[in-house]
Amino acid sequence: MRNLNIVKIGGNIIDCDEDLEHFIKVFSALKEPKILVHGGGKLATDLSNRLGVLVKMHQGRRITDAASLEIATMVYAGRINKHIVAKLQGKGCNAFGLSGADANTITAVKRSKKDLDYGYVGDISSVQTTVLEALLSSGVTPVFCPITHDRYGQLLNTNADTIASELAIAFSKKYKVELRYCFEHKGVLSDLQDSDSVIKKINKDQFDELSSSGAVHSGMLPKIHNCFYALQKGVHAVHIGQTEMLNNPKTIFTTLSIL
Amino acid sequence: MRNLNIVKIGGNIIDCDEDLEHFIKVFSALKEPKILVHGGGKLATDLSNRLGVLVKMHQGRRITDAASLEIATMVYAGRINKHIVAKLQGKGCNAFGLSGADANTITAVKRSKKDLDYGYVGDISSVQTTVLEALLSSGVTPVFCPITHDRYGQLLNTNADTIASELAIAFSKKYKVELRYCFEHKGVLSDLQDSDSVIKKINKDQFDELSSSGAVHSGMLPKIHNCFYALQKGVHAVHIGQTEMLNNPKTIFTTLSIL
Repeated sequence: MRNLNIVKIGGNIIDCDEDLEHFIKVFSALKEPKILVHGGGKLATDLSNRLGVLVKMHQGRRITDAASLEIATMVYAGRINKHIVAKLQGKGCNAFGLSGADANTITAVKRSKKDLDYGYVGDISSVQTTVLEALLSSGVTPVFCPITHDRYGQLLNTNADTIASELAIAFSKKYKVELRYCFEHKGVLSDLQDSDSVIKKINKDQFDELSSSGAVHSGMLPKIHNCFYALQKGVHAVHIGQTEMLNNPKTIFTTLSIL
Repeated sequence: MRNLNIVKIGGNIIDCDEDLEHFIKVFSALKEPKILVHGGGKLATDLSNRLGVLVKMHQGRRITDAASLEIATMVYAGRINKHIVAKLQGKGCNAFGLSGADANTITAVKRSKKDLDYGYVGDISSVQTTVLEALLSSGVTPVFCPITHDRYGQLLNTNADTIASELAIAFSKKYKVELRYCFEHKGVLSDLQDSDSVIKKINKDQFDELSSSGAVHSGMLPKIHNCFYALQKGVHAVHIGQTEMLNNPKTIFTTLSIL
């Protein structure tokens, strides 16, 4: 089975020019086939503020109305995606930026209004890998922004962590996939105040224990839950840490495993 | 030789929801391999105004400073491109939106400051068709926005008419290319006040005559000049008219030819 690296970067890397530049240098040097998934960061909130568009939140969750979706599409698919693609090209990495609407790669269903109307937020319903496989075979590196579509003409705002894990699951049928989440911490921390308190390995039983005992920051729980779901669905390995884990074998980071 | 349709739409179609919807319906129904190139329209100017970013002009030409390029990237590669892609997907056309930076398809050189510093404006230096050909063979329809890159990490604003003609020229080596410019008029008019004064056929000699006699609106001259350049470089045919020329054989439009 061929190897495939799927790497997700979040706002903390995107929002800092220096960190992004460093990430792009390290990522572009990875020799194996790879896919990048990027999140949003503060740029969408900044643009909303400049345009006087109210960022609507409900219990800490963002509501995506039509105006917010337009801003998300401009910032994620336009500003951030093309900026990253051009920078990767500058480093000799043949990047190809896309949303889930492009070549119908990721379809999603508008989240139901059961408890709350999230607006134009999509939960992934399918991933088509055929065109992406052809691109990977030609040495092209797909770069996904967190926008998908419903197949009926509607774009949808979609969580980038989930895009990364659903892509990893879909590719696991044909590739040995390693999924890596790059973020601001060195890994999953047992003590948020201590940046060196990295839990190096977490298996499923340990995770259940850690989450019930409160030893892991509650904000990390959905992300880790997502990772275990991906492992159960055939993803070879999931790692959480900083950019250095991509190229420095001495780096400390968190590896999740079923057993 | 396989047929390939390259269609360019400008601001007048993009700015009107109804016209865009109609165009998408007609374009998506074209059965042969096809590429769409879209321009910008008023949305970038609207966003500039809302953000208080001054649109700088010099002798009728737009100057693209860093703030304007950021807006162009958001609007062209984000808002317009993904909107069109999602709508085409909704009609069953497997669209894939991209800029010239994506898969390094179109490289450009920042225009020299000889007479005037245009800022981040690029003149096309090369077109790579390999990845695009693979997409076309898989039934995918590339949809280009008017943004390219310099290969060193810099995005550049690039004229959509020129992107369409340079793509047409590059594909002419392997495909029988028909290049179609869809705009607000029925074709090239001999009298701008009379929407029915369409010149149905213009050959190179007639064009030279028309342009020196002033019989064709001066704004159309660079566009037509571009078209003849494409014909001389191997493009099979160039047509200028409204959306209807794509599917209605009774429609009147302008066809350009060398002889």
